[in-house]
Amino acid sequence: MKLANYVSGKWLEGKGEGVPLIDPVTGEELARATSDGIDLAAGLDYARTKAGPALRAMTFAERGGLLRAVADALTAKRDEYFDIALRNSGNTKIDAAIDVDGGIGTLKYYAGVAKGLDGARCLRDAGYERLGKDESFQAMHLWVPLHGVGIHINAFNFPSWGMWEKAAVAILSGVPAFVKPATSTCLLTQRMVKDVIDAAVLPDGALSVICGGGRTLADLATGQDAVAFTGSADTARHLRANPNIIARSTRVNIEADSLNLSLLGPDASPGSAEFDLFVKEVTREMTVKAGQKCTAIRRALVPAAIADAVTEALSARLAKVVTGNPRNESVRMGPLVNKAQQKTALEGIRQLAAEADVVVGGADGFKPVDADPAAAAFVAPTLLRAKAPKEGRAIHEVEVFGPVCTVMPYASAGEAYALAARGGGSLAASVFTGDDAFATEAALGIAAMHGRILVIDAKVAEANTGHGIVMPMCVHGGPGRAGGGEELGGKRGMRFYHQRVAVQAGTTRLDQLAAGAVEVAL
Amino acid sequence: MKLANYVSGKWLEGKGEGVPLIDPVTGEELARATSDGIDLAAGLDYARTKAGPALRAMTFAERGGLLRAVADALTAKRDEYFDIALRNSGNTKIDAAIDVDGGIGTLKYYAGVAKGLDGARCLRDAGYERLGKDESFQAMHLWVPLHGVGIHINAFNFPSWGMWEKAAVAILSGVPAFVKPATSTCLLTQRMVKDVIDAAVLPDGALSVICGGGRTLADLATGQDAVAFTGSADTARHLRANPNIIARSTRVNIEADSLNLSLLGPDASPGSAEFDLFVKEVTREMTVKAGQKCTAIRRALVPAAIADAVTEALSARLAKVVTGNPRNESVRMGPLVNKAQQKTALEGIRQLAAEADVVVGGADGFKPVDADPAAAAFVAPTLLRAKAPKEGRAIHEVEVFGPVCTVMPYASAGEAYALAARGGGSLAASVFTGDDAFATEAALGIAAMHGRILVIDAKVAEANTGHGIVMPMCVHGGPGRAGGGEELGGKRGMRFYHQRVAVQAGTTRLDQLAAGAVEVAL
Repeated sequence: MKLANYVSGKWLEGKGEGVPLIDPVTGEELARATSDGIDLAAGLDYARTKAGPALRAMTFAERGGLLRAVADALTAKRDEYFDIALRNSGNTKIDAAIDVDGGIGTLKYYAGVAKGLDGARCLRDAGYERLGKDESFQAMHLWVPLHGVGIHINAFNFPSWGMWEKAAVAILSGVPAFVKPATSTCLLTQRMVKDVIDAAVLPDGALSVICGGGRTLADLATGQDAVAFTGSADTARHLRANPNIIARSTRVNIEADSLNLSLLGPDASPGSAEFDLFVKEVTREMTVKAGQKCTAIRRALVPAAIADAVTEALSARLAKVVTGNPRNESVRMGPLVNKAQQKTALEGIRQLAAEADVVVGGADGFKPVDADPAAAAFVAPTLLRAKAPKEGRAIHEVEVFGPVCTVMPYASAGEAYALAARGGGSLAASVFTGDDAFATEAALGIAAMHGRILVIDAKVAEANTGHGIVMPMCVHGGPGRAGGGEELGGKRGMRFYHQRVAVQAGTTRLDQLAAGAVEVAL
Repeated sequence: MKLANYVSGKWLEGKGEGVPLIDPVTGEELARATSDGIDLAAGLDYARTKAGPALRAMTFAERGGLLRAVADALTAKRDEYFDIALRNSGNTKIDAAIDVDGGIGTLKYYAGVAKGLDGARCLRDAGYERLGKDESFQAMHLWVPLHGVGIHINAFNFPSWGMWEKAAVAILSGVPAFVKPATSTCLLTQRMVKDVIDAAVLPDGALSVICGGGRTLADLATGQDAVAFTGSADTARHLRANPNIIARSTRVNIEADSLNLSLLGPDASPGSAEFDLFVKEVTREMTVKAGQKCTAIRRALVPAAIADAVTEALSARLAKVVTGNPRNESVRMGPLVNKAQQKTALEGIRQLAAEADVVVGGADGFKPVDADPAAAAFVAPTLLRAKAPKEGRAIHEVEVFGPVCTVMPYASAGEAYALAARGGGSLAASVFTGDDAFATEAALGIAAMHGRILVIDAKVAEANTGHGIVMPMCVHGGPGRAGGGEELGGKRGMRFYHQRVAVQAGTTRLDQLAAGAVEVAL
């Protein structure tokens, strides 16, 4: 079966045999993907000229209605998506829920955001700026939707959420979404788009999808398009260096993998609530989606004095994680997405092992439950412990995109912040401490290197949303290594799809413009 | 005289003979500039590690005090700066005032912004984000200063304002400024830095300047630095494509030249107030600083029916502009900055002349007042008129950085907006109309392609701040061709030097963090 592409308002089959999509547990081929021969330039232009004006003519409330209708169309097919997530991604039910329900939930959340934006079609900063003594002439900062398309290049680990967290914000902003999922898991993305198109709930051209190569998309972007990328730092570099993107100042948002950390405070002793919460969260982050989350904890910073106790507690917990075929009900952790990822992860573990001791798991000889190691893409949950974290390089720089984490003992708070900075910028960090003063100090101590920080104590044990979960009301992205981007964050995410323009005019004319715009802080 | 560089808290002389700085009226050599042999890596690190922590430890009010002190030190030497602007840039008094007083004014404005930020050291978005049903765990978006340096690469046309509009915002944000002015006019920049350093009003390392080449700065930037560039689209491309900048996701803000337009509304007839205001403003934009402003009007869009009348009125006004040596009191317009710029501008005029008729001036045979055409860098005020603006290419794409503008007749409002978009994104546009409904329609019709729009009618004839003047309370920058950047805009400018981080924590802990931050909308 060759997956069709949806471009220029039509389902189009690509040329050639295509790339096989594989079940990572059984090795079975599920489908093939190719976009060869598809006229991408025409497809982008179709979205820009057909759907762009239609979306911009709608109010935020009307665009929000589109998102709600998309969410409803998807909810009706939820069980099928779980099945695809199992077959194409080796997802457990919990893994699939994060992706499928996370996507639908984000659409619903943005439908809710739209309600708060009244009947407006554009946005504005609060108030007017005085330009001189005379109040009759002032300035207002207006936000208008770009006259282009959102080019969304997504990662393999979230074929559902990765699409919708971008498309929801673009469509709400009045900008069509042109989606290029990672080929290896695009079965789910393509099926969801098909269901939405079949439901006929979006304006023509507002949503497109290509299955297979999309390398030339960057060559076709204009200065009014906005390219949002999630994936490896390597591919991100190619995208940023694209001569067309550079020449046209096309907006590019990068969300790249990073070596996220969790910091256990100096106050936490074995047996304390924060100690237990930390151990639980690190284990969960290592094993959910087999560690294939860009926000997952890769570095566990712990007070040197209790490093033994933390390592033992983590080891004990990891020993209980049953890894194997998710079709077996006892299984808690599935495979990586494919053999190529498995190979890269095992090589990464070997690199880390040069600087840290393997405490649990490792690169060799793992035997999954109910699966053939030769055909399947499993990696053992692997805990390492760094001897001298300050001297290490690979442990701060090599991200193993799998169920892998390194324990790093620290001697002082200052040393912990310095180790944090060695990651070169990350998406997410968490701090576990019962000490309120340390909570503030640590958050500020690592803030400049992070896009999000979760601060945990016993009081929020139940209410907290977890280290790795991206909540749509918070910005998602991080500086430096993490790509320097920003997505989501409620209304804030719409910034990427809008042009801010300072309008200087007579005050009554500003009032007229202001009447059609809704006040926001992005 | 070789200009010294101020780096690592020391005045250092570069190696070699250096590049000559020339009087563009007389051809006389004024000084030489070289940064060869200066250890830029050490200089950047000095700023990051010495001045960064010192600035971050200060409150906004304290940093505002620094800006005020810098402004005072400069005000004391104002007359000397006007003299340098005359000699190194060929500035008239009005030209010099825009640069010198504009720089000092921007510093004072940001000192005022600081007052409104209380005793805080960082910023935050308004309110908390609810993450679930339980209100005890929420999120706040905090803004913390980057732990790096602002690398400021400036253009030749504003050696004062160009430095201070960037440095003021960086220092207020808690980030040191490392300034690389354009070599050809760095005499003024270097003297101003010298006066500020002599006044000993800034923390050690908070302000550095290099005179001469700074190509390697991009190779030395980190993921916590922020590179702000003003200049040609060509150099901007090199900067953006720098492998180190790309690998580290270093922030880059580009403010590049663009083909800004002014639009005369369909309602304006000869003799109307808006007609006269339009003619006056286009002439002013062409001649102030000899048209060497990145915001200057390059394209004058006028109703086809009155294109003759507009062209005649502009021609009559331009005929009165005395161009020559600014030391002569009758002179209203000076030279371009140097022979190289003159050559490029004359070539540009020839390119435009292939698509448009030269009505006034032109590329050949101009004789300035009180100056030797062979030694000096003059270009005649040159007005062109496009025969078929829709068919033209060069008139929308070739920016002549001098006293040059092309009249473009339009047949309908829709055609005017389409012509506007042909510029591929601009810094500034202006709309002259007495029709309030058209004012709103036109502003929205061209908004996505612009960073700023000035809307003029008779009522704001006196109060308006002009098409080309950058006001510090409004954002400055534009999409696409204009670089896609954003500077200034009051507090908004600080965004570039801060990392936004979502902090998810117990509400009482958020309260504690919020107490040290001041609420803003950036």
